[in-house]
Amino acid sequence: MPDDCIFCAIVAGDIPATKIDEDDRVVAFMDINPATRGHTLVIPRQHADNVLEIDEEDLAAAVKMGQRIAKRAVRGLGADGVNLLNSCGEHAWQTVFHFHLHVIPRYQGDPLQLPWIPHPGDQEDIAAAAAVLRSTS
Amino acid sequence: MPDDCIFCAIVAGDIPATKIDEDDRVVAFMDINPATRGHTLVIPRQHADNVLEIDEEDLAAAVKMGQRIAKRAVRGLGADGVNLLNSCGEHAWQTVFHFHLHVIPRYQGDPLQLPWIPHPGDQEDIAAAAAVLRSTS
Repeated sequence: MPDDCIFCAIVAGDIPATKIDEDDRVVAFMDINPATRGHTLVIPRQHADNVLEIDEEDLAAAVKMGQRIAKRAVRGLGADGVNLLNSCGEHAWQTVFHFHLHVIPRYQGDPLQLPWIPHPGDQEDIAAAAAVLRSTS
Repeated sequence: MPDDCIFCAIVAGDIPATKIDEDDRVVAFMDINPATRGHTLVIPRQHADNVLEIDEEDLAAAVKMGQRIAKRAVRGLGADGVNLLNSCGEHAWQTVFHFHLHVIPRYQGDPLQLPWIPHPGDQEDIAAAAAVLRSTS
């Protein structure tokens, strides 16, 4: 546990957070900079910098908690959909380096924009990337 | 299994896909409209429309597969980071209604933009949303 990790401090109760649920492995609390109403973060109790480092059972627990919160956002907040998002690394928008899964309720007409414009990729390059992903251990 | 589900057809082998990995629960294959090099989708063999409907063990298997692919993207493709994204519902950018987890390798300077502009939320409204999320079953 890094001394300066604010999410470890939230897990420890040393700094306040608006918690909504927790279990043996994970804690869920409100994002203070919400993208939409009900934006929640799910973090493991055990520090891990990101999805490359997190214990896979902590990861599974985090996504199951995210699923439960997604259901509550639809039922309770009237959300029209939900995004789950994890950012790994500064070049992927990560700003707090303790793994966190964003649970972002979505509402018809909200201002969020898909991060990319879908268009067909180059098939040879897709095949080449696939070959690398298949063969890398 | 809906008759017209293209991802069920990929699982069944009835339409082609560039698969990179699979296990008893999930199949991973390349997105044909990649946001970045190596963009992969992970889907459950068992049809589920979205994260609200998917069996939680299929969900756990999907995210564990996503983690393994993220590691390979960093090691094999030289990615500088990774995003995991799930979209649930048409108002959350979902276009194929069979659960899929996007694994999006990120590269320094790539064009993807964070879908929202972070700014502090109204603390009373955050507390009110939290109360709903806590109390909804």
